[in-house]
Amino acid sequence: MNELHQMNELFDELFPIMRSITGEGVRETIRILQNYMPLEMEGIPTGTEVFDWEIPKEWVIREAWIKDEQGNEIININNLNLHVINYSEPIDQWLSLEELKQHVHTIPHLPDAVPYVISYYKERWGFCMSQSQLDSLSEGTYHVFIDSEKINGELNYAHAILPGKSKKEVLISTYICHPSMANNELSGPIVAAFLYNRIKKWENRELTYRFVFVPETIGSISYLWKYGQHLKEHLYSGAVLTCLGGIEHRLSYKMARNNAAPLNQLVTYLNERENYAMPVRPFTPLYGSDERQYCSPGFNLPVGQFSKMVYGAYPGYHNSLDTKEAMSIESLLESLNEIEQLLKLQELDGYYINLKPFGEPKLGKYDLYPDINTPTIWGRSSNKKIDGRQQLNQILTILNYSDGRHRLADLAKTLNYSLEDYEISLEALKEHQLIEGPFYEERELF
Amino acid sequence: MNELHQMNELFDELFPIMRSITGEGVRETIRILQNYMPLEMEGIPTGTEVFDWEIPKEWVIREAWIKDEQGNEIININNLNLHVINYSEPIDQWLSLEELKQHVHTIPHLPDAVPYVISYYKERWGFCMSQSQLDSLSEGTYHVFIDSEKINGELNYAHAILPGKSKKEVLISTYICHPSMANNELSGPIVAAFLYNRIKKWENRELTYRFVFVPETIGSISYLWKYGQHLKEHLYSGAVLTCLGGIEHRLSYKMARNNAAPLNQLVTYLNERENYAMPVRPFTPLYGSDERQYCSPGFNLPVGQFSKMVYGAYPGYHNSLDTKEAMSIESLLESLNEIEQLLKLQELDGYYINLKPFGEPKLGKYDLYPDINTPTIWGRSSNKKIDGRQQLNQILTILNYSDGRHRLADLAKTLNYSLEDYEISLEALKEHQLIEGPFYEERELF
Amino acid sequence: MNELHQMNELFDELFPIMRSITGEGVRETIRILQNYMPLEMEGIPTGTEVFDWEIPKEWVIREAWIKDEQGNEIININNLNLHVINYSEPIDQWLSLEELKQHVHTIPHLPDAVPYVISYYKERWGFCMSQSQLDSLSEGTYHVFIDSEKINGELNYAHAILPGKSKKEVLISTYICHPSMANNELSGPIVAAFLYNRIKKWENRELTYRFVFVPETIGSISYLWKYGQHLKEHLYSGAVLTCLGGIEHRLSYKMARNNAAPLNQLVTYLNERENYAMPVRPFTPLYGSDERQYCSPGFNLPVGQFSKMVYGAYPGYHNSLDTKEAMSIESLLESLNEIEQLLKLQELDGYYINLKPFGEPKLGKYDLYPDINTPTIWGRSSNKKIDGRQQLNQILTILNYSDGRHRLADLAKTLNYSLEDYEISLEALKEHQLIEGPFYEERELF
Repeated sequence: MNELHQMNELFDELFPIMRSITGEGVRETIRILQNYMPLEMEGIPTGTEVFDWEIPKEWVIREAWIKDEQGNEIININNLNLHVINYSEPIDQWLSLEELKQHVHTIPHLPDAVPYVISYYKERWGFCMSQSQLDSLSEGTYHVFIDSEKINGELNYAHAILPGKSKKEVLISTYICHPSMANNELSGPIVAAFLYNRIKKWENRELTYRFVFVPETIGSISYLWKYGQHLKEHLYSGAVLTCLGGIEHRLSYKMARNNAAPLNQLVTYLNERENYAMPVRPFTPLYGSDERQYCSPGFNLPVGQFSKMVYGAYPGYHNSLDTKEAMSIESLLESLNEIEQLLKLQELDGYYINLKPFGEPKLGKYDLYPDINTPTIWGRSSNKKIDGRQQLNQILTILNYSDGRHRLADLAKTLNYSLEDYEISLEALKEHQLIEGPFYEERELF
Repeated sequence: MNELHQMNELFDELFPIMRSITGEGVRETIRILQNYMPLEMEGIPTGTEVFDWEIPKEWVIREAWIKDEQGNEIININNLNLHVINYSEPIDQWLSLEELKQHVHTIPHLPDAVPYVISYYKERWGFCMSQSQLDSLSEGTYHVFIDSEKINGELNYAHAILPGKSKKEVLISTYICHPSMANNELSGPIVAAFLYNRIKKWENRELTYRFVFVPETIGSISYLWKYGQHLKEHLYSGAVLTCLGGIEHRLSYKMARNNAAPLNQLVTYLNERENYAMPVRPFTPLYGSDERQYCSPGFNLPVGQFSKMVYGAYPGYHNSLDTKEAMSIESLLESLNEIEQLLKLQELDGYYINLKPFGEPKLGKYDLYPDINTPTIWGRSSNKKIDGRQQLNQILTILNYSDGRHRLADLAKTLNYSLEDYEISLEALKEHQLIEGPFYEERELF
Repeated sequence: MNELHQMNELFDELFPIMRSITGEGVRETIRILQNYMPLEMEGIPTGTEVFDWEIPKEWVIREAWIKDEQGNEIININNLNLHVINYSEPIDQWLSLEELKQHVHTIPHLPDAVPYVISYYKERWGFCMSQSQLDSLSEGTYHVFIDSEKINGELNYAHAILPGKSKKEVLISTYICHPSMANNELSGPIVAAFLYNRIKKWENRELTYRFVFVPETIGSISYLWKYGQHLKEHLYSGAVLTCLGGIEHRLSYKMARNNAAPLNQLVTYLNERENYAMPVRPFTPLYGSDERQYCSPGFNLPVGQFSKMVYGAYPGYHNSLDTKEAMSIESLLESLNEIEQLLKLQELDGYYINLKPFGEPKLGKYDLYPDINTPTIWGRSSNKKIDGRQQLNQILTILNYSDGRHRLADLAKTLNYSLEDYEISLEALKEHQLIEGPFYEERELF
């Protein structure tokens, strides 16, 4: 079964689950994902203080509906789990239409959409429906019923590690707390799960990859509370995955707050030098996802964010129009391909060390230099082993700038080859013990 | 009595005094200013070596006039104290018109102006008059008489301190050594005295303000000789005040030599970001006032200079056309207002420290965040307490960048509010112990 | 005898010598140069490992020719020493024309040029001739004869030092390994030898000058093997001299890899500020001469390269068209003048220290300031001793910026005089003990 089919299948398993920031929905989501990757689940008990926050009670929702005087069901969360305010209090009451309207949320300018409304930290009850359905209700009394409960429990998240040669880590973080929405919920976990399996297959993985699935905001804050110190010490790079679907949308990158972040530098380089053209959004703490937490000043981690059909900027954002069809599984596959390719380049784009840095090495010894010099071969200097002048240019450039102070992207600025073209020359030089690397921080040449 | 009247009155008291770099004129000027602010006067004795200079003798001038053969007074310093060369030697002699002309200075291209001429360090005698008066003198002999003396005494200056929460100081320096001129003498001391009284009334004064009144050049060199080490340790910012009058002229700022000087940075920021449009003059050691001394390489203090009708660039510069009317007291009041406003912004524009820097704080606890999230309030996120989305934007920005490495002006670059707009948000965050500051140097977050 | 004649004479002595990277040709070249400067010759024995290289055997070439069946000489190295492949193996054999062609190199697109071909490290034999001569050969058998030998010996190079006040050194390096070519061989050694004699005559030489003559590539690598550590500790600046002839060509500068190199900075400054217009070539490890070795990452010395008719970019490059006439001795004299002038400016362009840095010094004491100040002399402030306002402007600027952090070129940016114009003002300030310098690294003011 190909990836596209598998992604589609995973989507269908995850979509109907009633998720929130705590509770059975999160755990069920993690259990399904565990069929795709070896996620470890952890939990922090209700009432635990995590930084300036406190882990809330778990929200248990069993039933929620509105019926008219005739007992006709107006809405029921069994049909659409957005119909109840997430974290709503219980209620069982008869109301006039006027009273009911005080507790029903709609989106007037999108009359067919049911909004997604949350009230985690303030006690209230309420429903969501489409404006057109609300308009169609006739005068009369209505029976509102919510069977919910808040209980001591825990906040859950899960993670998995793919070790590489270096202990330096790349964080891939996504969230698992929204109920039935496609782009702004499932796109992230699905791409993350399949990205895990792609990277798992890389030969010679240089970096260590950490995949994290958390409820948004309080989940990433909790994860930082638990693993923030480790991340401060080991994190090299990272990105939050969110809203990765969208037909005819382009994958874009939101810069990490710390502009030295490798992905900031790499995407900027590629756009400037190689007409790569991934749209870039500046860092802002005002909107976004968990990069706001990773980039809070106490951590300031090098974590950006990938998004395709960006949150807040499409009609289905936070309402029932956010469907699989509006997002498209094919577009997730495109995002997966682009992100994987960028992470591969990120591995190549390290610091290298010239092991024979005093003068040029005698390249002829390694069959990397022509054994005769005549004016007629000047301009190609090729002796069969070398593919024209190009590999020799790359080799001389790599050797000269492999001083522990220049990244591959720095040295590549002096020639007109794209980053991935250097891989063969780098391998040839490593084979002859002429360079070592990549390393992921500056180092002394000797 | 309003400020304008008081400024006018102070002007009239100070204008007639025969000032020089030493002597009774300086002391009388300081005594009059002491009615407006608690200036402490100090003196350094004649003959003291101050760095590469030596304190000169005091110049005493009692009488100076020219009379014709009939005993008609041609000029007399009782009418205009510019008529004698400042620091002139005594003389009592009869001269032909031709001989007289060797000792009379005029400004040929301004036939009605009497120039201001000084010869502090070379012994000579002489007079100043208008070119038209000189042209009107008929052949004959003239009696020249100067009753002056150079005596051992001292060089005087005065200062006053307004303490703030921080020991870091802001220097306001001006000069008191020119005889009867308005813009290029009295504008500085008058604005300085009233600025003292404005800042004295500020609540929560953060910085300490040092007001210094010195004879130009040798006075500031003497002050640095006495207090230079203290200033090197404590000075945060400063400006020399000179030539602050001028109808239809704009207040401008001459950059401190050290471009990290807070006023350099603030004025540049305001001009770039807020269309503030205060003209900026680059630093130069070639022309100017005492900032040349404060910015000498042994001190390199962060001291710029404010000027409106700039020295050297208006017809009355260093002559009798430099009058109250040509300058206007109203223009001094404008300069006062502008400088005070800029100094207030300078206090706001410090470094702040986020006291809950690990993830975002739970703003809802402090009533700084909406307690419900629905698509229809997205874009305002207001819950009455917050004025639209704007305060929340400011708060999230302040929290994210209050890391001890960003000044307010740095973080303000990411949004479109003017610096002064942040005051309310900063106060709200301080009230809830979410931030502390301002500080006036970079510091570690924790 | 003038320089031009001397240069011409030296050219004619050096041209006929059969040079290679080792052997008698190099030694004879050095012996001739010793008549012009006190060069010390050194040698490294065959077989010595120098970094990644090994010193090869010396190549001895006694005879090399081709004759036809009738015994007519087709080519003979007695006529042109390019006719044999440099480092060719011996041979004595009769060949058909077809077989002969396998061992003859030509330049088809330059039918009258004999190419210069080398095969130092791969054993082969062969000849070089013009394409038109090769085309004119008739069918038949040909006698090829090369009497050569590779013997244990040494690789030679030579150097000479001109000491200055500072132990910091300027390296002038050129090569002596090509046989009879003009621009791409003799231009460098000739200009270097005469530059030595120019700099020897400088009064108050500030820096120490090191002149180095090496076989290209392996010679500079050997020199670095011997003196690299010394150079890392003492080298301030330097340049390789190559291809300095060329009628109607402009002298150009190839940047050192390390852009802090003084000549990089100076040439950039002069081009930006003074319309100096010396063409600049970026650093590259791909082409060039011994700067590739000096700028290898293990050394990264501040060494650029001067060239006029640049290697690879003129028809005579590496062939028999590279003659004295095509290069012109006059053009060498122009290069010599330009390089000497630039090195003089480099000495001036150091860091200076103001010895009276607290406030402005009392310039009047030193007769460097007008003794009267009147509005009419404002704008010239001259009192005979000072040449208009200009010297005073320079003096105030030098004093203000002589803080051990600004080079002369840095402070000169604030005024519009050319660098050399500052020499008189600097001397006047040094004479009065107001400044000291130049120094060639940043230093504390006190």
